[in-house]
Amino acid sequence: MVQINRERLLGDLTTLRSFGATGTGVVRPSLSDIDMQARAWLRDRMSDAGLRATIDGAANVVGLSPNDGPALVVGSHSDTQPTGGWLDGALGVIYGIEVARTLLENPDTAHLAIDAVAWCDEEATYTSCLGAKAFCGVLTDDDYSATNAEGESVAQALERVGVKGTEHERLDTTRHVGYLEAHIEQGPHLEQNGQRIGVVTSIVGLGGLRFEFVGEQNHAGTTPMAMRKDAGVALFEFATRARKRISAVASPSTVWTFGDAELHPGAESIIPGRASLLLQFRDPNSDVLDLIDAEMRSLVSEMTTEGPVDVVIDEVRERIAPTIMDAEFQQHLDAAAERHSSGAWVRMPSAAGHDPMVLAHHLPCAMLFIPSIGGISHDFAEDTSHDDIALGCQVLADAAVSILEAQRG
Amino acid sequence: MVQINRERLLGDLTTLRSFGATGTGVVRPSLSDIDMQARAWLRDRMSDAGLRATIDGAANVVGLSPNDGPALVVGSHSDTQPTGGWLDGALGVIYGIEVARTLLENPDTAHLAIDAVAWCDEEATYTSCLGAKAFCGVLTDDDYSATNAEGESVAQALERVGVKGTEHERLDTTRHVGYLEAHIEQGPHLEQNGQRIGVVTSIVGLGGLRFEFVGEQNHAGTTPMAMRKDAGVALFEFATRARKRISAVASPSTVWTFGDAELHPGAESIIPGRASLLLQFRDPNSDVLDLIDAEMRSLVSEMTTEGPVDVVIDEVRERIAPTIMDAEFQQHLDAAAERHSSGAWVRMPSAAGHDPMVLAHHLPCAMLFIPSIGGISHDFAEDTSHDDIALGCQVLADAAVSILEAQRG
Repeated sequence: MVQINRERLLGDLTTLRSFGATGTGVVRPSLSDIDMQARAWLRDRMSDAGLRATIDGAANVVGLSPNDGPALVVGSHSDTQPTGGWLDGALGVIYGIEVARTLLENPDTAHLAIDAVAWCDEEATYTSCLGAKAFCGVLTDDDYSATNAEGESVAQALERVGVKGTEHERLDTTRHVGYLEAHIEQGPHLEQNGQRIGVVTSIVGLGGLRFEFVGEQNHAGTTPMAMRKDAGVALFEFATRARKRISAVASPSTVWTFGDAELHPGAESIIPGRASLLLQFRDPNSDVLDLIDAEMRSLVSEMTTEGPVDVVIDEVRERIAPTIMDAEFQQHLDAAAERHSSGAWVRMPSAAGHDPMVLAHHLPCAMLFIPSIGGISHDFAEDTSHDDIALGCQVLADAAVSILEAQRG
Repeated sequence: MVQINRERLLGDLTTLRSFGATGTGVVRPSLSDIDMQARAWLRDRMSDAGLRATIDGAANVVGLSPNDGPALVVGSHSDTQPTGGWLDGALGVIYGIEVARTLLENPDTAHLAIDAVAWCDEEATYTSCLGAKAFCGVLTDDDYSATNAEGESVAQALERVGVKGTEHERLDTTRHVGYLEAHIEQGPHLEQNGQRIGVVTSIVGLGGLRFEFVGEQNHAGTTPMAMRKDAGVALFEFATRARKRISAVASPSTVWTFGDAELHPGAESIIPGRASLLLQFRDPNSDVLDLIDAEMRSLVSEMTTEGPVDVVIDEVRERIAPTIMDAEFQQHLDAAAERHSSGAWVRMPSAAGHDPMVLAHHLPCAMLFIPSIGGISHDFAEDTSHDDIALGCQVLADAAVSILEAQRG
């Protein structure tokens, strides 16, 4: 049994928080000066932990274990949202370092290999999961030409921060047997149910559709109700029916949102001739996404048949398949969580996106959640109790040991 | 019995159409060069008809009968919408001239006084019913400083067209006993029901409300459905319920329109925290407007009580009382319509606004409608059959005679 060092863990988290600290929050967008200062500090902490640490050509901080494989990659991203919380990715990064040094310090586990990592730009200041893509060798020209809000491209930014030309640390399938990441839940489920650890089963998939309603623009005074082809009224009716239709096929994990609606021309005395409505839906199960998609398509043709307004799917916004976490890794996390939380743990999907959406295509992945106070994230108010932070790291360390022991047979 | 001159009537309408003709439509916004050219021609046609005609200080063309009162003012406006039809106000202006000259030519009616008029800016290029307001002496400083889309004020425009300082022709209650205006219906009722004349009972009143929905903006992935305060969903629900509530208290003449809806911030992955919805409702009866208003206020408090989203009335947009047409004048129009249309006439409200909304506060008013083909107006495609145009003028002339004879006792 290994034992993580709670004070050292919380101390490093507090130091990392100081890079970009703004009130209770943190402003540390990827490839900013302060982000690069934090990365230099992380590299040094990895070196202090006995890892061979570098900032690579994608600004990933990678600390390789001196031990041979099988190795587990453990970490998260150290960049933040424009106005971010202090934990988010930082938590998983410091967990990676703490797990690596805890194992190296303990004679029973000093032979096991943990490669710690702090990915670059998970939050898509330029392009989402930039660092994880580079690690997997799937960066495209589109990624390199993606720009931040100021119009600077990834290629320009990597040159500016001085890592252009530095080699990318790459996934080595002869060494790396999997990836573990811990994260705050970013939702209220764990807290509301009195649970302290979530073992992630999958990262939800996502579908998006834009509906267009085509009626007839006309005078709001002289056009009798019975003769109208009001695109706005059709939109309201569609949204109300869609709500019932989605509920009928949804799982308990499904979420869906009408993020935008527009009536055209949008004037007081004019019957809207056109309208559009944006729907996004998420679920850990592809079948549920398919069911919702099918329900929406059937509602579209139903309402077009009923008239008087035509409804069409104007645009399929995106379809991201759920990312399934490795089944065996989940069992190791279950066992460690049970050992340390007296049953206060649960399997659950992740409703938000994470680097494993890229990494899981290339190596087995697993994730662990700890509670978010009030379910708040991507906000200065984001927080988690110190006890939960320490517990999560202990569970992750135990799971890393048992996974690596199992791999060594 | 007088007899209007169909060829002269249609000839003058065709000539007036040529001022600003654009395809089948007319572009003659008030106080434009082409509008002033049309007004000069109208003044000359009034003079030809034996009237003492001038373009007054508000650019109204007024042709006073040489006869003493009691006099009826008969006409409409000669300005058009930015892209208008050829009839709209032009029809009633030429009717006024035709009725005046028809009566003056006929020995039986040559003693009766018709003052013909072509009002300025009913269409609100600057400010609605500018000419009618000037005639009634109710022009305000706000009216004079109202601007067109190019930023020119009424005061500047009147100076530019050379009428500033010219006296306003004014309502003279010792002479004027009423106002008659004919207009195309601008809606489909007459055509759909095979009727050729509408005797207007009132011009509909109008209410407007803007509703604000105040929920909680949040992450569209990590916020469970049960915890959401989705302002957009509340708006859709409100609109759907409002439709039923309005229908329950509406009269057959009621029309209502949700002209605009907005969700904030309007992004794919964000639950809308605020939303707003614009409602306009019209009815010839103030009581019905009050009922709809009350229903909406009760629905607002109902939904706020239900939660989770607060609904408030953000803004009372406007409330215009219905304009009631003179009861006795309506009977004269009924009788003339019956005489010439073999029962193909009906009493009906006007769903659109007209100069009598100003004039009726100062003298008895009545209006007559003729059919609009396809219900189309404020559009180049606006049209009415020549037979209907001639019939409407004949009915108006007969009614004018009987009203004036009745006044003379």
